[in-house]
Amino acid sequence: MTRILVTGAGGFVGQALVRRLLAGVDALPLTQLVAVDLALDLPAHPRLTQLRGSVADDAVRAQALAAPPDVVFHLAAITSGQAEREFELGLTVNLRATLALFEDLRRQHAATGRTPRLVQTSSIGVFGLPLPPHIDDATPIVPTMSYGAHKRMLEILLADYSRRGWIDGRSPRLPSVVARPGLPNGALSAFASDLIRELAAGRSYESPVDAEGTLWLLSLPACVEALIHAACIDGERLPATRAWTLPSLHVSVAEVVAALMRRFGVEVSQRLSYAPDPAIIPQFARWPSVDTALARSLGFVPDPSLDVLIERCLPGAA
Amino acid sequence: MTRILVTGAGGFVGQALVRRLLAGVDALPLTQLVAVDLALDLPAHPRLTQLRGSVADDAVRAQALAAPPDVVFHLAAITSGQAEREFELGLTVNLRATLALFEDLRRQHAATGRTPRLVQTSSIGVFGLPLPPHIDDATPIVPTMSYGAHKRMLEILLADYSRRGWIDGRSPRLPSVVARPGLPNGALSAFASDLIRELAAGRSYESPVDAEGTLWLLSLPACVEALIHAACIDGERLPATRAWTLPSLHVSVAEVVAALMRRFGVEVSQRLSYAPDPAIIPQFARWPSVDTALARSLGFVPDPSLDVLIERCLPGAA
Repeated sequence: MTRILVTGAGGFVGQALVRRLLAGVDALPLTQLVAVDLALDLPAHPRLTQLRGSVADDAVRAQALAAPPDVVFHLAAITSGQAEREFELGLTVNLRATLALFEDLRRQHAATGRTPRLVQTSSIGVFGLPLPPHIDDATPIVPTMSYGAHKRMLEILLADYSRRGWIDGRSPRLPSVVARPGLPNGALSAFASDLIRELAAGRSYESPVDAEGTLWLLSLPACVEALIHAACIDGERLPATRAWTLPSLHVSVAEVVAALMRRFGVEVSQRLSYAPDPAIIPQFARWPSVDTALARSLGFVPDPSLDVLIERCLPGAA
Repeated sequence: MTRILVTGAGGFVGQALVRRLLAGVDALPLTQLVAVDLALDLPAHPRLTQLRGSVADDAVRAQALAAPPDVVFHLAAITSGQAEREFELGLTVNLRATLALFEDLRRQHAATGRTPRLVQTSSIGVFGLPLPPHIDDATPIVPTMSYGAHKRMLEILLADYSRRGWIDGRSPRLPSVVARPGLPNGALSAFASDLIRELAAGRSYESPVDAEGTLWLLSLPACVEALIHAACIDGERLPATRAWTLPSLHVSVAEVVAALMRRFGVEVSQRLSYAPDPAIIPQFARWPSVDTALARSLGFVPDPSLDVLIERCLPGAA
């Protein structure tokens, strides 16, 4: 039986992950799930403990770890746009809180001998600008924004804790996960979600990215399955880096629009206009081809097609 | 005129750097030099303030930064072997103290608008095992020990502070700097220093590395000049990563011994024996060829020859 801790459990991915875990995953038979976030909107469940607070708060972490977890999904983060605007907050939540969490788990390991599995959501934001023409598992990683810098630092740190046997770490790098709700969450890449969500809902949308823009997309349900799979893999099969880029669909805006037209009718294109934003396009809409051989060898899969991805983005799909 | 702060000023490199700066560097006309370390053994000098304490101590940093520095040489570190044995100490000094120093300087920048230059000593320890057959400026960086992990994290962090204009950072990666005194400093690569120092002093030496062992060597005086040069380069000329591997001599143990024989006579070889240590050789004595094109384009140079390097290693040379 498994005690699971989820940080960032109130977020877009966190909420969906908690609901999926509570619904029952054969490989992770649940004893107790502790969900931590500043704000939580999860339904009551006999196996669920909801802890409202920040993972950066020592007292909150102490409560969250009171019963040593077997598996930790560490999703709490200040994402790209917000981490860029609010540097100190990003540093505190992304870097300091994670370091503190790792240290808590190291001390727990020293006391109990247990080595929990920990899945932390890294990001394709670790690849900085200018992006190389092709990305694979050997591409040098040179972040160029604070968010990507923090994520790369944490990948390196978790690999060291894993090498020492204190934490059995895993750092899957998430691409754009769609379709986020329309609330501003600070992710500069949110336009991919906006595009799909607004057009699917029958509303008009002005895209800040031209039709030639290219993206790496993963649907929310596929992302949740990837995180669960990341927790279930035998640590011995993982590379020493403990980090890998998740498979996703590499598609153009035009291809996404075509898929939306197949699902919702040709009038979708009439509700779409383009107002390309030079501040967004270079970093968030010119993603090169990617070879995720390592992740595929570990059993990770992208959505099977854009049509399936669109279907999975509809309300209630996660 | 220049206010300079040196952390780790009591160490092997730090002491030599402080003496060199006090002797007068045209490009860095000295107003005041603040030297910080737990232990200091520097001569009194009208421009020198000696602060005994740890850079990890908030009060010590506050004193060290009371007059905002123009240039910081951040050398304080727990080196490879000790950081591996004493994880928490390494984390505190290498990672947390540096993060705190960067944050102090960021706040000072917000208050004064000044952007100090900061040279932090990174290390070829950022390259993890197995080492690739050739290393250059595009080699993926995958540290495999805690020391290298911390150093790589700090390179990434300093690049981010530099991009934002808060610190004008520089992270030169030091190879084996020779010849350290015979005190245990925790550096697993110390055998290169032991080899040169003991044989040069007319003593016997049992080498834990075979004659085919290969090393990257830099003499202490050349290292000091490299650090000063790193502080003097115009920030606009630096790459966004703010990090580079310093040029050094790529030599075999046999070549070092041959140079020692040229300087001290053939009897040197009679005082040398080999007892290869399989724990040391893979990580510290199989360094591949290296191309430091970036550093050379910035004006960094290695020692001109092994014979000059040996000469520079003799007592009093720094």
